[in-house]
Amino acid sequence: MGIKSDAKAIIDAAIAAVQPQAAVKAALDKLELKGRIYLVAIGKAACTMAKAAYEELSIEEGIVITKYGHAQGGLDRVRVYEAGHPIPDENSVAATEQAIELAKKAGAGDTVLFLISGGGSALFEKPLVPIDELKDISAQLIACSADIVEINTVRKRLSSVKGGRFAKMCAPAEVAAIILSDIVGDPVDMIASGPACADASTCPDAKRVIEKYGIRLSQQAMALMDTDTPKRLDNVTAYVTGSVRELCRAAANAAKRMGYEAQILADSLTCEAKEAGSMLGSIARYNSLSRSSRAFIFGGETVVRLNGAGMGGRNQELALAAAEKLSGIDGACVFAVGSDGTDGPTDAAGGYVDGHTKEKLEQKGISIQESLKNNDSYNALKAIDGLIITGPTGTNVNDLYAVLIKR
Amino acid sequence: MGIKSDAKAIIDAAIAAVQPQAAVKAALDKLELKGRIYLVAIGKAACTMAKAAYEELSIEEGIVITKYGHAQGGLDRVRVYEAGHPIPDENSVAATEQAIELAKKAGAGDTVLFLISGGGSALFEKPLVPIDELKDISAQLIACSADIVEINTVRKRLSSVKGGRFAKMCAPAEVAAIILSDIVGDPVDMIASGPACADASTCPDAKRVIEKYGIRLSQQAMALMDTDTPKRLDNVTAYVTGSVRELCRAAANAAKRMGYEAQILADSLTCEAKEAGSMLGSIARYNSLSRSSRAFIFGGETVVRLNGAGMGGRNQELALAAAEKLSGIDGACVFAVGSDGTDGPTDAAGGYVDGHTKEKLEQKGISIQESLKNNDSYNALKAIDGLIITGPTGTNVNDLYAVLIKR
Repeated sequence: MGIKSDAKAIIDAAIAAVQPQAAVKAALDKLELKGRIYLVAIGKAACTMAKAAYEELSIEEGIVITKYGHAQGGLDRVRVYEAGHPIPDENSVAATEQAIELAKKAGAGDTVLFLISGGGSALFEKPLVPIDELKDISAQLIACSADIVEINTVRKRLSSVKGGRFAKMCAPAEVAAIILSDIVGDPVDMIASGPACADASTCPDAKRVIEKYGIRLSQQAMALMDTDTPKRLDNVTAYVTGSVRELCRAAANAAKRMGYEAQILADSLTCEAKEAGSMLGSIARYNSLSRSSRAFIFGGETVVRLNGAGMGGRNQELALAAAEKLSGIDGACVFAVGSDGTDGPTDAAGGYVDGHTKEKLEQKGISIQESLKNNDSYNALKAIDGLIITGPTGTNVNDLYAVLIKR
Repeated sequence: MGIKSDAKAIIDAAIAAVQPQAAVKAALDKLELKGRIYLVAIGKAACTMAKAAYEELSIEEGIVITKYGHAQGGLDRVRVYEAGHPIPDENSVAATEQAIELAKKAGAGDTVLFLISGGGSALFEKPLVPIDELKDISAQLIACSADIVEINTVRKRLSSVKGGRFAKMCAPAEVAAIILSDIVGDPVDMIASGPACADASTCPDAKRVIEKYGIRLSQQAMALMDTDTPKRLDNVTAYVTGSVRELCRAAANAAKRMGYEAQILADSLTCEAKEAGSMLGSIARYNSLSRSSRAFIFGGETVVRLNGAGMGGRNQELALAAAEKLSGIDGACVFAVGSDGTDGPTDAAGGYVDGHTKEKLEQKGISIQESLKNNDSYNALKAIDGLIITGPTGTNVNDLYAVLIKR
């Protein structure tokens, strides 16, 4: 088998190992669910998680809210909605209203089984201000480089479901939350903006953020900064399941089975995508002197600095940046892939490059540096068969990056 | 010994192993130098290299050109000049004129022993246009983001010594060049702008760069674009010696002697300093779960994106960026150090951080993110005793970066 086939086999094995079915079923074994069970599943992996629960339990009624193109039907008494991501839209609000209605049917002694996966922040939202003001405030916060904790501190107060408010609304019913982590480090108050998690941020915190950045708010929004989020939730049991660490371990194990000496180096990369690519390329270049086959595995979620108007995603950008350093090296590759099967606004999950990628691009008149400058990694990789396309995978636990050296 | 002492011992061992003395002596063993020997040594390591040669050979007469503060005297018949770096100044030009005079004394059958180290581009320069125009053209090229190959293609034509011209001027004498590499990958035409290396760039190449970026040139400078550089040098024998790879190997060996499982991961990092720091921090975080002591060694030369008006250097910035990810982890550190003992316009060679660095900074009211934004890593590290200060080391073979996990 060639090194590219090895890369594909490692990717397939890693993604298979973090499918939500097994994770949800294992979590359900540990939970004791009482009374009638109402199902609410949100996020990119919502359909797969709902199906796993449906196969194990008798569900009274359910609602699934997932991203456009991610719906799978076929479950009785379970309605599936698609909505906007990464920006919430009117379908997010309409579906969330249905979920609130459903949760209200659960009484004392009943259970709301709440399945949470990444993307839930946008898909599960009923704002307490007009949605256009919510978008405007989010845009202001992002524009002034507020960090994600600051952004969430404000946004939780503008929402009727975030920051533990949905779980509170479910009382007196019990909430059993199963959370498939897509954020490095598994912070449960951040995943989907923590709709079932007591909120540590306070009203003074929120007002400090508003003041620090001079955010413009309507009177209505300003008043909401003074409404507190739940500091304690007595009706919630939460399980975090699936994680980028499992993704990395499965990739390393698959590589070992194929004869590579495999090593996980880190599972929490959050640096710039193309800088990580340059570094992985340097690791490949140095280790290309090795006499044995080696695999260096990384996990995380890098970021992209947007300058250009091209097409791409963080994983494609990471891979393309690595191609520069890999150029001319035989038997080495770098790949980067999103475990959810999507990377930026493209149909690809990531990118694959090797020692011939740069030469092939030059033959087509494509410069790596220009493509990176324009954030146009998709078109560069597409031109030389360097895209990794998996379609939606049904799971979402960050990204997998690897350097392979094959001897 | 604590982990910080280990870090210091590893740094000392690595820098000692790449001192130019041994490298120059080994190279001289392989060279057969004929006739009278005239010595020209340029760069940050010029004094140390000259001293090593002086101890081995009978030198007729010599000139050393080094950076301000780097002069060491005490060699008979060898004059030592200090000059401007990284921007050439009038002392660069005056000293270079002296070197040209000296080289002219060497006749057929004699040898110019030419010792080249990093920094030579600025220290060894006699421009063919007024020095202010040279500075202006360089500034124009940098401002429009021309790459280093493009910049050198133009600058070699504006210089009477770069791009092989100095070696040509030495004919009919032989030139024996010993090059201490400070550029990742050891490209001999780039180190000190290749004064003893035949030049692959052409006049049409130079004019394409001028046109591509719309560089403004005087008539005199424009005419120089049409004067060619030597395409072949029959009187030169060149040896590249010392390298970042040796620096990394010595660091790994020192770590092994102290009980660490040591591994070199890459020796050609060229990515952004703070992104590399974030990645090294992630590697430390993942491997902090290890039960044995581990050392991950890197070499290279990262770059800094300048946004702020603070004090710092690439190594200090790398280390400070790693502190964020390291926060709260016991028995782990990250350090970054320039083998020449200088890092940016500071008196430090680099930085050291561990799991307590972030907390200590916060106690002093210093934010890592703000310091990085202002490129003020020096003051942040200084406040918590995180600077690595070695003074000038007498060598210059890029930087050393490491993650240590001590159990």
